[in-house]
Amino acid sequence: MNTRIGVFGGSGYTGLELVQLLARHPKVELAMVTSDRWVGEPVRGVPSLKYVGHDAGREAKLDVALLATPAETSLKLAPELLARGSRVIDLSGAFRLKDAALYPRFYNFEHTQPALLAEALYGLPEVKRGTARLVANPGCYATAAALALKPLLAAGAVHPENLVISAASGVSGAGRKASEEYSFMEVSDDFRAYKSLNHQHTPEIAQTLGVEELTFIPHLLPMQRGILCTAVARLTGKHDPVAVLRAAYANEPLIRLLPKAEAVRIADAARTPLCLVGATADATRVVVCTAIDNLLKGAASQAIQNLNLMLGLDETEGLK
Amino acid sequence: MNTRIGVFGGSGYTGLELVQLLARHPKVELAMVTSDRWVGEPVRGVPSLKYVGHDAGREAKLDVALLATPAETSLKLAPELLARGSRVIDLSGAFRLKDAALYPRFYNFEHTQPALLAEALYGLPEVKRGTARLVANPGCYATAAALALKPLLAAGAVHPENLVISAASGVSGAGRKASEEYSFMEVSDDFRAYKSLNHQHTPEIAQTLGVEELTFIPHLLPMQRGILCTAVARLTGKHDPVAVLRAAYANEPLIRLLPKAEAVRIADAARTPLCLVGATADATRVVVCTAIDNLLKGAASQAIQNLNLMLGLDETEGLK
Amino acid sequence: MNTRIGVFGGSGYTGLELVQLLARHPKVELAMVTSDRWVGEPVRGVPSLKYVGHDAGREAKLDVALLATPAETSLKLAPELLARGSRVIDLSGAFRLKDAALYPRFYNFEHTQPALLAEALYGLPEVKRGTARLVANPGCYATAAALALKPLLAAGAVHPENLVISAASGVSGAGRKASEEYSFMEVSDDFRAYKSLNHQHTPEIAQTLGVEELTFIPHLLPMQRGILCTAVARLTGKHDPVAVLRAAYANEPLIRLLPKAEAVRIADAARTPLCLVGATADATRVVVCTAIDNLLKGAASQAIQNLNLMLGLDETEGLK
Amino acid sequence: MNTRIGVFGGSGYTGLELVQLLARHPKVELAMVTSDRWVGEPVRGVPSLKYVGHDAGREAKLDVALLATPAETSLKLAPELLARGSRVIDLSGAFRLKDAALYPRFYNFEHTQPALLAEALYGLPEVKRGTARLVANPGCYATAAALALKPLLAAGAVHPENLVISAASGVSGAGRKASEEYSFMEVSDDFRAYKSLNHQHTPEIAQTLGVEELTFIPHLLPMQRGILCTAVARLTGKHDPVAVLRAAYANEPLIRLLPKAEAVRIADAARTPLCLVGATADATRVVVCTAIDNLLKGAASQAIQNLNLMLGLDETEGLK
Repeated sequence: MNTRIGVFGGSGYTGLELVQLLARHPKVELAMVTSDRWVGEPVRGVPSLKYVGHDAGREAKLDVALLATPAETSLKLAPELLARGSRVIDLSGAFRLKDAALYPRFYNFEHTQPALLAEALYGLPEVKRGTARLVANPGCYATAAALALKPLLAAGAVHPENLVISAASGVSGAGRKASEEYSFMEVSDDFRAYKSLNHQHTPEIAQTLGVEELTFIPHLLPMQRGILCTAVARLTGKHDPVAVLRAAYANEPLIRLLPKAEAVRIADAARTPLCLVGATADATRVVVCTAIDNLLKGAASQAIQNLNLMLGLDETEGLK
Repeated sequence: MNTRIGVFGGSGYTGLELVQLLARHPKVELAMVTSDRWVGEPVRGVPSLKYVGHDAGREAKLDVALLATPAETSLKLAPELLARGSRVIDLSGAFRLKDAALYPRFYNFEHTQPALLAEALYGLPEVKRGTARLVANPGCYATAAALALKPLLAAGAVHPENLVISAASGVSGAGRKASEEYSFMEVSDDFRAYKSLNHQHTPEIAQTLGVEELTFIPHLLPMQRGILCTAVARLTGKHDPVAVLRAAYANEPLIRLLPKAEAVRIADAARTPLCLVGATADATRVVVCTAIDNLLKGAASQAIQNLNLMLGLDETEGLK
Repeated sequence: MNTRIGVFGGSGYTGLELVQLLARHPKVELAMVTSDRWVGEPVRGVPSLKYVGHDAGREAKLDVALLATPAETSLKLAPELLARGSRVIDLSGAFRLKDAALYPRFYNFEHTQPALLAEALYGLPEVKRGTARLVANPGCYATAAALALKPLLAAGAVHPENLVISAASGVSGAGRKASEEYSFMEVSDDFRAYKSLNHQHTPEIAQTLGVEELTFIPHLLPMQRGILCTAVARLTGKHDPVAVLRAAYANEPLIRLLPKAEAVRIADAARTPLCLVGATADATRVVVCTAIDNLLKGAASQAIQNLNLMLGLDETEGLK
Repeated sequence: MNTRIGVFGGSGYTGLELVQLLARHPKVELAMVTSDRWVGEPVRGVPSLKYVGHDAGREAKLDVALLATPAETSLKLAPELLARGSRVIDLSGAFRLKDAALYPRFYNFEHTQPALLAEALYGLPEVKRGTARLVANPGCYATAAALALKPLLAAGAVHPENLVISAASGVSGAGRKASEEYSFMEVSDDFRAYKSLNHQHTPEIAQTLGVEELTFIPHLLPMQRGILCTAVARLTGKHDPVAVLRAAYANEPLIRLLPKAEAVRIADAARTPLCLVGATADATRVVVCTAIDNLLKGAASQAIQNLNLMLGLDETEGLK
């Protein structure tokens, strides 16, 4: 019998990508997709299915539910779905931060599920593979930033102080919305920082890297898809940083190590499930650039990696 | 009698901007423009003039020559023009670095004019105003980076160690050229770092800031004009960085101080002679964003500022 | 005493351009600007003024009122302002169509001011210069299309049947709004027709050209500003179409005739008050391309032309 | 034994797409790829292969050779490869025009292979399916234009006179090249016509449509991929044009008929092998819009359609 998968939140940019990937996945069955705007219409990319509402979706008998919903919606849906026996992969931030006390500041709500927060696996496979009923799929910036620095910190090749991460994302990272801020007139021919020192992915990155402080500054790019992350760290001098990255990622099927920082381009990562990594160092510092598609390795394709791991499949099934 | 101005290199993007600005300048006369591709054609924006070659240009009797030529051309032209009694404002890097030994590494030539290098005034008016026969007009990134950090360093508000400057420029910064690298197909929908730790503006920024080391990483934006510079520095705790910037720039006619780092946008700086500055700080760090038009405050309009200072005019003459 | 000018609707893209132009106009005084979103804030570009609401604006004693308001607002404002002794230049479609019966179909309202409709001068100076209390400033597409074909039709160089006009506009033509349709995600990397055979400028173009039918198809470009209009007409064989255009536009200060259709580029018209015109013909057909900035020659700078004519000033005053 | 396929010209944009499609094709073997710039390097997307030069490529024993080479190269390669027993699908214009006399004007060479020209099948499957040793794969604009109008002309729904086709293409249509004309600075924020009345696809479209004259005007869009074709024709009144298109395309697997002209968007056709078609009519005229990806349905994926037909496979094999 096929593994039945459901997607909650199928009309956002991430949900649309998830549905595309699941529709082509050879080992699972996409059984249900919810949408708040398209109920009753054929599912885009899977016309044999029809979008249902969240309430109907909750009634579906699912082996695994993928939540592409806002964090507050995920916080309510996840315990209900787990109680019904489904496993859950949540693409929002609702279960990513182990410290519940951070939620009011970074997500504007009190966390009501501390036990699930403790239980949830933070699903960044290239950092740690595990199994769990509930997987918190990492944030897009957090994925790009952690993959840039984690092996270097773990090996002691760089100091955990004075980490500076400057990143830039395409507009799809802001989600589908009718707003003047993300209108063509406001975004095109422009580039600017936002939420500097205060972005909700900052504590997520710090948690993954195991550091107390880091400086993270995201920027908005006039393009649709992709993130470039430029991380700067001080070398300890104990290890060649390029060699450390090469060893760490030698067998990772979804990471491409490039010869230097400037070989990493968003254009080569867009529309792929890959993370591109490149580093340039001198005697004292290393610059690591990573590039991902924010909707794929930063969201939907990483959720498929986590789904494959959860089901005991090859991690790249459906992603080639 | 009018002050006679000549432009060498009038067909590059910077040269074209210079000619536009000089054509509208109420207090000087644009008397000569050279071009290597348009000799004999009417000067764009000043059809009463015709482009001449460099050799003819050298014969023109000029009060001030503005050089929008490659560094090696400027290195040859400047001493000749000075010897003929003209004053010179050079927009290339040929006279910017006080340490001649840096030229082979960053500009690929041995500097042959050490006396002129010593004599040249580095013309960043908001950092230092002076007078000289020969002015080295600052680089675009160097302008944006120095204006972000100089007042903070001068006041002792930030530490001179661990400075990290991530910057991004529109494509016009690469100059006018037929190359696959800067084709629409390669640049659009992409974003990447280049020359990380090795850009020729790095020593220029360090020289202006008076620091031994800094990490400077430029990136290429899929847009025509503008630079955003995002600088991160550690606070000493002795001064409020925002107050320091406010005091430093209170009376600067071409700097706009904005309430925080993310209020600084390339779109608001493009096609203006302004530098926008904004800072966001917490207890330990400050992020300063600056935005300029790389062809104006990063090149042509800053040259007009220097021309006005050289001639004893109001610094913003012709720039309003 | 200065001529006092007021702008109604100063926070839309057209209104912002109008204010910029009036602020630099040497012969008039910008006395009042209304805005529905920024009441009480300093007027952008004229910080000595503050935005007022429409009601307060109506009380201002104005020599000329420029209306950058929706058509239904203009329909109410214009008679009130005329009754108070102001002259009016309306940038909406409210007074452009001589046939009141067309309004319900193309503007979704019954026209309530037939006498003013009859009185209004259609202000396309290069087609007809006149004077009036009330000027209907032409639409952006209508300007570009009429300037492409009017001289050819007037001279009998082309047949009035089978005219096909394909045009493309930057996104600012849609106005400032928060909508998913004009979000960066929907507009960038896309191109499509809209309102084909049914755009409200179609009858306006037909009226100016004096033809019964024409095929007009607008398209949406992934860029901010500018319109390119590509018009195709059948030659009568009686006149050389290029010679006709050359004669018609020889003395027009704001038209640049280029040597062929493909020499006309939006990039050269953007941010200028010009209309670029170029034609390519063979034995039976002519293709005429025109390019304008939709916010300038298609709206604000054309309103300034009309203002100058109304006040007996040089038509290009404030536009050089 | 597998069908062995070779690609000549594997480093252009079309060649790269061809290689990607063939690498994933389940029923053929990609055996050889030539490149003039990457000889000896691993083939992009198929690292087990290495690029070879044209001379080595000619020696390969191929069942079918796909030529993504300039027309003059194809003119030389095709007869050689046919003589060696390979079948040939040529993606250039070398074998598209039945009238050899048109080549000097539109392709700047005398055609030296009139027999092959007569023999070649013009491979636009939705217009005519056939089999041949030599297939001329249609041009990108020609595909979009023919699919807009052919069923209407064939049914007698529109007049063959006064056809006007305005089309716009992304920059990849110009091929990979280092030129100032296609630099980011020249293409972005611009839109213009080119080769109006004189494009080499004009006689190709006329030949497919079976009309004597048509007006075809291509434009250059500031985006990478995709063509939108907007065709205008006069109705005969004998048939409902929308019904004619619906009937013609009801069973076409790679055509999507949309409810009206403005529903056709490049964004929905890009990166797909589809042609989107939509029509809007009134009593006298019809506007038909079509959208394709110029590199896929306009080149590489259409070549795969032709390859599948040649080999007796399902036409969409490898394209789903």
